[in-house]
Amino acid sequence: MGKGGQSEGNGAQCEENMAAWLLGVNTLKIQPFKLPSLGPNDVRVAMKAVGICGSDVHYLKSMSCGDYYVKEPMVIGHECAGIIKEVGSKVKSLAPGDKVALEPGIACWRCKPCKEGRYNLCDEMKFFATPPIHGSLANQIVHPADLCFKLPEGMSLEEGAMCEPLSVGVYACQRANASPKTSVLIMGAGPIGLVTLLAARAFGVSKIVVADVDEVRLAIAKDLGATAVIKSSQNMEDVGKELELIKEALGGAEADVTFDCVGFGKTMTTALKATSRGGKVCLVGMGHSDMTVPLTPAAGREVDIVGIFRYKNTWPLCIDFITSGKIDVKPLITHRFGFSQKEIEEAFATSARGGSAIKVMFNL
Amino acid sequence: MGKGGQSEGNGAQCEENMAAWLLGVNTLKIQPFKLPSLGPNDVRVAMKAVGICGSDVHYLKSMSCGDYYVKEPMVIGHECAGIIKEVGSKVKSLAPGDKVALEPGIACWRCKPCKEGRYNLCDEMKFFATPPIHGSLANQIVHPADLCFKLPEGMSLEEGAMCEPLSVGVYACQRANASPKTSVLIMGAGPIGLVTLLAARAFGVSKIVVADVDEVRLAIAKDLGATAVIKSSQNMEDVGKELELIKEALGGAEADVTFDCVGFGKTMTTALKATSRGGKVCLVGMGHSDMTVPLTPAAGREVDIVGIFRYKNTWPLCIDFITSGKIDVKPLITHRFGFSQKEIEEAFATSARGGSAIKVMFNL
Amino acid sequence: MGKGGQSEGNGAQCEENMAAWLLGVNTLKIQPFKLPSLGPNDVRVAMKAVGICGSDVHYLKSMSCGDYYVKEPMVIGHECAGIIKEVGSKVKSLAPGDKVALEPGIACWRCKPCKEGRYNLCDEMKFFATPPIHGSLANQIVHPADLCFKLPEGMSLEEGAMCEPLSVGVYACQRANASPKTSVLIMGAGPIGLVTLLAARAFGVSKIVVADVDEVRLAIAKDLGATAVIKSSQNMEDVGKELELIKEALGGAEADVTFDCVGFGKTMTTALKATSRGGKVCLVGMGHSDMTVPLTPAAGREVDIVGIFRYKNTWPLCIDFITSGKIDVKPLITHRFGFSQKEIEEAFATSARGGSAIKVMFNL
Amino acid sequence: MGKGGQSEGNGAQCEENMAAWLLGVNTLKIQPFKLPSLGPNDVRVAMKAVGICGSDVHYLKSMSCGDYYVKEPMVIGHECAGIIKEVGSKVKSLAPGDKVALEPGIACWRCKPCKEGRYNLCDEMKFFATPPIHGSLANQIVHPADLCFKLPEGMSLEEGAMCEPLSVGVYACQRANASPKTSVLIMGAGPIGLVTLLAARAFGVSKIVVADVDEVRLAIAKDLGATAVIKSSQNMEDVGKELELIKEALGGAEADVTFDCVGFGKTMTTALKATSRGGKVCLVGMGHSDMTVPLTPAAGREVDIVGIFRYKNTWPLCIDFITSGKIDVKPLITHRFGFSQKEIEEAFATSARGGSAIKVMFNL
Repeated sequence: MGKGGQSEGNGAQCEENMAAWLLGVNTLKIQPFKLPSLGPNDVRVAMKAVGICGSDVHYLKSMSCGDYYVKEPMVIGHECAGIIKEVGSKVKSLAPGDKVALEPGIACWRCKPCKEGRYNLCDEMKFFATPPIHGSLANQIVHPADLCFKLPEGMSLEEGAMCEPLSVGVYACQRANASPKTSVLIMGAGPIGLVTLLAARAFGVSKIVVADVDEVRLAIAKDLGATAVIKSSQNMEDVGKELELIKEALGGAEADVTFDCVGFGKTMTTALKATSRGGKVCLVGMGHSDMTVPLTPAAGREVDIVGIFRYKNTWPLCIDFITSGKIDVKPLITHRFGFSQKEIEEAFATSARGGSAIKVMFNL
Repeated sequence: MGKGGQSEGNGAQCEENMAAWLLGVNTLKIQPFKLPSLGPNDVRVAMKAVGICGSDVHYLKSMSCGDYYVKEPMVIGHECAGIIKEVGSKVKSLAPGDKVALEPGIACWRCKPCKEGRYNLCDEMKFFATPPIHGSLANQIVHPADLCFKLPEGMSLEEGAMCEPLSVGVYACQRANASPKTSVLIMGAGPIGLVTLLAARAFGVSKIVVADVDEVRLAIAKDLGATAVIKSSQNMEDVGKELELIKEALGGAEADVTFDCVGFGKTMTTALKATSRGGKVCLVGMGHSDMTVPLTPAAGREVDIVGIFRYKNTWPLCIDFITSGKIDVKPLITHRFGFSQKEIEEAFATSARGGSAIKVMFNL
Repeated sequence: MGKGGQSEGNGAQCEENMAAWLLGVNTLKIQPFKLPSLGPNDVRVAMKAVGICGSDVHYLKSMSCGDYYVKEPMVIGHECAGIIKEVGSKVKSLAPGDKVALEPGIACWRCKPCKEGRYNLCDEMKFFATPPIHGSLANQIVHPADLCFKLPEGMSLEEGAMCEPLSVGVYACQRANASPKTSVLIMGAGPIGLVTLLAARAFGVSKIVVADVDEVRLAIAKDLGATAVIKSSQNMEDVGKELELIKEALGGAEADVTFDCVGFGKTMTTALKATSRGGKVCLVGMGHSDMTVPLTPAAGREVDIVGIFRYKNTWPLCIDFITSGKIDVKPLITHRFGFSQKEIEEAFATSARGGSAIKVMFNL
Repeated sequence: MGKGGQSEGNGAQCEENMAAWLLGVNTLKIQPFKLPSLGPNDVRVAMKAVGICGSDVHYLKSMSCGDYYVKEPMVIGHECAGIIKEVGSKVKSLAPGDKVALEPGIACWRCKPCKEGRYNLCDEMKFFATPPIHGSLANQIVHPADLCFKLPEGMSLEEGAMCEPLSVGVYACQRANASPKTSVLIMGAGPIGLVTLLAARAFGVSKIVVADVDEVRLAIAKDLGATAVIKSSQNMEDVGKELELIKEALGGAEADVTFDCVGFGKTMTTALKATSRGGKVCLVGMGHSDMTVPLTPAAGREVDIVGIFRYKNTWPLCIDFITSGKIDVKPLITHRFGFSQKEIEEAFATSARGGSAIKVMFNL
C-alpha cells in the first residue's frame, strides 16, 4: 500500500492481478499483470465493466491499428469503469468504494497542444491499449485520480464504461458545433454513428437524419431518436439520388452539420454535397486513408471539414447526460461476457462479427 | 440626374457611356452601355482603374467559369476604382469627386447567410461580371453607395482597384486565423498566393514559406517578404522530399496554417501533411474540382480544412493596410493598358499569357 | 392592392384599419391607422395576437423608455403574430392565409454592424413602437416578408406572438454560451427571467438556479423547470448569505453562466461573485443605469460581462423550440383581452400591476 | 547533481545560493536560499536579469497584495531570465549554457481550468513570489524545463526578463481580440499601459490612442508608437470632454477595443462610453475593487467587459515579437541595479517612487 494512501482492506492485493494480454495475431490470454506502484496522485481501481472497441478488434486481428504496432505483449481494453480500492497520498476527491468511469489517456501537460487546451493532441500521450501502453481489461489497474470520474448514485458501472465511446460522439458534436440551431446528417449507423446520434440529441439538435447500408442498424437509429433514416448503397452512382432523399428528409434543406462516421470516398462525397453553404462536415470514421472527393466545390461553398482525435474533457458531460436521462446508452449494450479465457475469446469473436452486436461488454 | 441627387456637372452624362462587352468566345468589344437609373442609395462612378482577374480571362476563353455560363452579352470586369460623379438622394457618406474602391457584390440581405453575417454566401448575390450581372470595365457604372469605399488622401485609384484581389488574401487569412501566433505555408505564388502572402504579413505572421513550381514567381514572393521559398514539382512522388524542405524552412516545425492557392491533388496533399496537429488548411485555389487526398489522417490530426468564397467586409481593412504602408500592392501591377478596342484585346492576351504578368490594369 | 401582389379578397382593405395610438401620458386611443403602400418585398398582415411588453407600459406611463421619447402620436405594440392578407410582387415565401410571427425590427443593411452579422446593433434600425416608428397593435400592418416567419401546423398565433419575448431569453443564452456544459444562475423571475429559464433548458442546460424576491414568481420558475429557487432580498448585506445558498443549490459549485435579469447593483454584485472563474455574466435586466459593483475582482477571475440588445436571428429557433415541445410558452400567458377601447385600457392596467400577470395578450 | 542530469561544471553549486528575502514590511534582506532537489523534468538556472513589478513593491510595503498575505519569509521577484546550469534527467529541450526566459507559474494540470486550456486560472497555481511560493530574485533557482524558454541568438537576458510584463499586454490583446481590424484606446500609460501599447502594435493595430494624467508618460507612449495621446484628469466631470477628444483622435469614431490599465471608476466609465457598440473593454488595471460605472447602457450596446488574470502561453510569442523587431522593450528599462543589499534597497525605492522609472532591472 502506498505511503499515506488509503486502502479498502488488506485483501485487496493478495490475489494475483490478472489481465487480458494480446500476445500475437488472434491470440489473447488471461495472464498475471503486475501493477505499477501507486503515485501520490494515483488510484488503484478494480475494473468492473470493460467494453470492446473496434480498435481492440483491429489490434487482435493484425497486431496493429493505424500507425500503431504491437511489438511487445500488451494488455488490451480501454472502455472501462470500476471501483476504487486505494487512493494515493494526495488524492482528496476519491475514496475507496467510489464507483468511477476512467478516461484512458494520460497527457504530458508539457507540450504545446496540452498547454493550449488540446490535450488530446498531446505529443506524448499515454493511452490504454495503444502500444506500448497497457490497457484496462484487468482485475485491477493504477490510474491518475483526475482521470477517474465518480459516478453519481444510480449510474451503473456499465454506463460508466459507455462514457468512452459516447465521448467520441460528444466531442464530434462539440467540434462541429451541433446545437439547437443546426440540422444534422449522420453517415453511418455503426457504434460511432449511433453515439453521435445520441450526443446530437443531447446537444439539442431536433432534426437528425441517419444514412447507412444496413437496415437493421437504421432501425436501431430510428429507435434511438433519428428523425429519419436513409437506406444508402456503396455505389458512387447513387450519390445524386441519395442526396435528394437526404434533402427531402431534412424538410427540403441541406444539413448544417454532417458527421461522416464511415470515412469512405462515397460517404465523404455525400457529406460534402449534402451540407449547406457555411456548414460543417466532421470526419469521424476512419474507413480509408486516401479518398477522392469534390473538395474544391465544398471549399467554394465554405463547407468546413473538421476531424477529431479521440476527445477531451468529455467525461463530466457524458455522466451528466446519462444521469439526467438525456442519453440512454443501455440499448447499445447488446452482449455481455464474464472475464474468463473462454469468454474473452467468445466476446471478441462476437464483436468482430458485427451484425446485431453493437457494444460487447465484459463484467468483471 | 436623379431626383435629389448631386451631380458634378451637366456634361457628366452627355457623352455615351462605353463598356467592354463579352460577346462570345474570345470576343470582347467596346460598345455603348446604358446605365440603370440612380436609386436613392446609389452612386454613379466614373471608372478609372480596372484590373483583369483570372476569372475574366476564363470567361473570355470559354464563356463560362465554374458553374456560371454567359448566355447574353455581358460587360466584363470587377476589380475597380473610380471617381464619384453623382450621388443618390439619401447618400450622405460620399460626394461627387470622391475617389472610391468598389466592392463588386450586392447581397440580398433577406436570406439566412446574409442575416447571419456571411453575406458572401448570399442566395441571390449580384456580382460584377458574374452572369447575368454586368461588370465594371466601363466609363461609368451605377453601384450602391455602401459598396463604394472612399480612398484616403494619398491612395491611388490603382491601389483602390487592387483592394479586390487583395481581399481574397485578407479573407483567407481571416478564415484561417493567420496571426502573429501562427506560422504560414503558401502553396502557389500566382496572383492569389502573392496577395495571401502580403495579407499574412499584414496580419502579423512572421514566418511564411512559399512553394511554387516557377522560380520567377518564387523570386517575387521572396521580394514581397516570404521568409523562405521552396521550388516544388508537379510530381506526387516529390511530396515527401518537399515536406522535408518545408519543415526545414519553418525551423524544424510544421505549419500552423497552410493556404493551398493552387488546388491540385498534389498541392492539397502537401498542404495536409505539412500542417501541424490542430492546424488549419485553407483551400483558396480552384485548380481541380475532385482530388484524391489523405483526408482521414488529416482529420485524425485535427487539421481543419476551410474554404473561402470571395470575401466579406474586407475593403476598409485593405484600405487601412495600404495607407498605413503595411501592404504595398504596387509591385503586383506589372502591366498597364488604356481603354481602347486594341488595348483591351492586348491586355487580356497579356494576362492570359501569365508568366511575368501578375496584375494587368486598365487606366480609363 | 400592390401592383403584382396577391390579395386574399377584395374586402380586405374595405374596412378602416384601426390601431392603438399612444397620444400622451396614460392616454391610449383606438384610432384609424393608414397603412403605407405595399413594397415588392412586403406583406400585409392582419394582426391576431399582440402581447404587452414592459417597455410598452413604460411608454404609456412616461412617454419615454431609456433614451427614446415619444414626440408624435405613435401606434404601440411589438410582440405579435397574424395572418397574411396580401404579398408584394416579389414575395415567394409567403401567401395569403399563412399564419406568421413577426420580428419587429427592420435593419438598414448598409452600416457596419449590419454587414458584420450584428444587425440588432444597426445604426438606423426601425423597430415597432420605438419612436418615431409605429408599432403593431393594429388590425393590419405592412412589414417586410423576410421578417414574417411562417408558423407550422399546430402552432398557435399566441405562441407566435410569444416568439418576441422568448427571443430575448434565447439570444441571452447564445451570447452567454449557455449549453449542456454550463450550469446557470438566473437573477430575477420576472417575464425576462422566465423566458431565459425556458431558453436555457432548451439549450440543454441541466442545472438552473433562479433567485428572486417574490415567492409567487419563484413558484412559477420551479414549475417551468428550475432545478432550485432561492428567495433573495433587496439588502446588499444579504449577498454573502445568498451566495452560500446559490452555491449549495448548484451542488457546491459556482455558476458557469449567470443572467442578471434585474439589473440592480445588488443583483449584479451577486451575479459577479456567484460566477466561477472563467465564467460569464450576461446583463439582461435594465433596472439601474449606473451601478456600484466589484468589477476588478471579477475581471481578475476572468468572469466576462456581456450584454444584449434585443436579439437577432432568433425566430426560426423559437418556432422550432415551440413546435418540438422543448419550450412551452403557454403558461406565461396569464391574461387575455380583446381589441376595444375599454379592453386595451384594462389590459395595460393589468400588465402594469404586475403581480400574477406575466404576459398579457390581445386577441384581435 | 541530479541523477542523470547534465551539469555545466563542478563549481556550480559550491558557492552558497543567495536570494532577496522579504522578511517584513519594508524589510528585504539578501540571505542564503537552499534550492529544492532537481526533478527529472526540472532545470537549475542562474538568474541574470530580474525586473521589479508593482506587485513586488506592494508586498514590500504591506506584506500583502490583493488577497495574498506574506506570512512566512519569502524570496521576492518573478520577472526573470537566466542561464541554464543543470538539466534534469528527462530534459531534452535545454542544455547547460542556454539562455532562457522564465514563465513564473506552475499549474497543477489536474483541475478543470487547466484541462480546458485556461491554466492561468488553475485552482492550485504555484507562482513565483505569490505567498507561500518563493520568487526568483536569487543567484539560482530550480524550475520546470517546460516553463523555461530558450532565447534565440541576439536576444538579451534583460529582454528575456521583459517577457513577463510584456505577457500581460500580449494576453490582454488576445482576450480583447485586438487586431488589424480594431482601433484601440488605452486608459493609462504606466508600465502595463505601455506594454499593452507595444503588444497592440505587434498584433497589427494601426490606430491606438492613449490617455493618462501624466504628460511625461504620454510622451513615452507617443515615442513608443501611440497614434495620439490624450491628457486626462481625475475628475469625473471631465469624462464628457475627454470622450470628445478621444473620438476626435480616433478619426471621429469610437474605439473597437479599450484597455483600462488603471482600474478606477472614472477610467472604466470613460472606457465603457468610449467603446463602440459591439466592442470590448478589457479591464487590466487593478486600481479599485468596487467601482460605480454605467454598466446597463454598456450592456445595451453590447460592449463586452473582459478581464485578465496574468497570462497563458505568451512566452514564445513575446520572444518572437522581440526577435523579429516588432516590439522593442529596451526603452522601458529605465534603471539598472546590481544584486547587493544596498542596491536592492535602492532599486525598490526607485521603483516605488514611479515618475520616470518605468522598469527597474537587476543584473545578477
